[in-house]
Amino acid sequence: MRLATVAHAAGTSAAVLDGDTWRALPATDLSELLAANSQVSLTALAGEGIEGAVPVLPLPAPRKVICCGLNYADHIRETGRELPSHPTLFTKYADSLTGPDADLVLPPGLQVDWEAELAVVVGTTLRRADRSTALAGIAGYTVANDISVRDWQYRTLEWFQGKAWDASTPVGPVVVTPDEIDPAEGLEVICRVNGEQVQRDNTRTLVFDPADLLAYISTFTVLRPGDLVLTGTPGGVGVAREPQRFLADGDVVETEIPGIGRLRNTVRFMDGNCTS
Amino acid sequence: MRLATVAHAAGTSAAVLDGDTWRALPATDLSELLAANSQVSLTALAGEGIEGAVPVLPLPAPRKVICCGLNYADHIRETGRELPSHPTLFTKYADSLTGPDADLVLPPGLQVDWEAELAVVVGTTLRRADRSTALAGIAGYTVANDISVRDWQYRTLEWFQGKAWDASTPVGPVVVTPDEIDPAEGLEVICRVNGEQVQRDNTRTLVFDPADLLAYISTFTVLRPGDLVLTGTPGGVGVAREPQRFLADGDVVETEIPGIGRLRNTVRFMDGNCTS
Repeated sequence: MRLATVAHAAGTSAAVLDGDTWRALPATDLSELLAANSQVSLTALAGEGIEGAVPVLPLPAPRKVICCGLNYADHIRETGRELPSHPTLFTKYADSLTGPDADLVLPPGLQVDWEAELAVVVGTTLRRADRSTALAGIAGYTVANDISVRDWQYRTLEWFQGKAWDASTPVGPVVVTPDEIDPAEGLEVICRVNGEQVQRDNTRTLVFDPADLLAYISTFTVLRPGDLVLTGTPGGVGVAREPQRFLADGDVVETEIPGIGRLRNTVRFMDGNCTS
Repeated sequence: MRLATVAHAAGTSAAVLDGDTWRALPATDLSELLAANSQVSLTALAGEGIEGAVPVLPLPAPRKVICCGLNYADHIRETGRELPSHPTLFTKYADSLTGPDADLVLPPGLQVDWEAELAVVVGTTLRRADRSTALAGIAGYTVANDISVRDWQYRTLEWFQGKAWDASTPVGPVVVTPDEIDPAEGLEVICRVNGEQVQRDNTRTLVFDPADLLAYISTFTVLRPGDLVLTGTPGGVGVAREPQRFLADGDVVETEIPGIGRLRNTVRFMDGNCTS
């Protein structure tokens, strides 16, 4: 099943793909749908086809967006570290997220870098969950790019201030349910900048897989339907290159996981306020 | 003005102290009140006195709880670091918070430590705010203890997993408005464990003051009414002692800022679920 939040003439709606048609689900977005219907068969709820439906940010209101760093063996090696015994975790906010085709609007002068990632959508309340409970609690998978402001990330030991710039983490375009894809069997995670492939790896090489991450996090804090966990990025980020490479105004960042879909976001450096 | 969320026979209410009487404000808690009334004189809203009012967690639903580490010169020195040019920031969740008299229920076997802190309550929406705008956007000040699970905090470079255990960060008992107290003029921040003073310093020695922190954070993410910013802890934490000292089952942690109030929380080590 492929789920999305779609924009249409009258607003937005949660939706499920039926052939080429997005059929309405009874919520304005997937955040609301998952919060209300975590135990219900979504197919049974599908309504009419939506004219002119365009997938937007699928989960606009997660209460928690938790990210794992250093989770692909080759990316760990390029940062000069050893394979970890525990996941490195940091956070973003719902405010950090933006849509699959949105411009990434940031002030000029920042060192902005790409990090293509598989994201896990939580489907049930998880609290001190074991691996099997965590696995059963996954609502689906989507694509994210953990766009990182490297100069702010490395100002201090804690990465948060380089990771949580408003409206800079694209997510989407769809959420694919676990009956259709399995990261353990292998999903390619690809990033291209202006058409040039800069990252490509496979989720088979994750040090901590989605069930590991959800179980681990749920030891200290509850996860709820609609929460997002980003599983980390493979090698090939700009900050680790020789010479270092950062995104420029007008650069087009494509983030793709075949079997889920593709984000396409253009960097726009301009002054202005954060998004509301 | 002293504001609180108070429990009473019929539930909870936002309230303002009038002499010895808590008068009801039109919201179930301060989170709801600040979200709805950031531009309104709260005194004008005060209603009837509430019988048997008991202050509880004043802000149960902040969207953002952002914490500053390494912000008192002596605490920075005890961790072996130099004075920073930028604030070190990490996050907690609304789920991390608990009330001024609540037990701190954690699984046995963790290295649990104290961190007495001044907390700032955001009163308006702040986005790319300068210092003066940030200062004017402060709704008030309260007391917090950034209880930290040190073994998890130091498992990786990122502190988050040791800082965001559910229901382990007491906050309260009241929020005092900026017309009554000024951290720049000096507030004593005190922590006692079983009656023994373990921390005492003054907010005059903060490296980054509340307005600095709000302005800095608002550069990358919007702050909204009811959000909380914890300003960091002074020297004297258990992990930096020789020998190290951590909290034991039954230990009573008192966190006090004269002019605001005092938290009194008992550590309870027991297995069980996170709070909902």
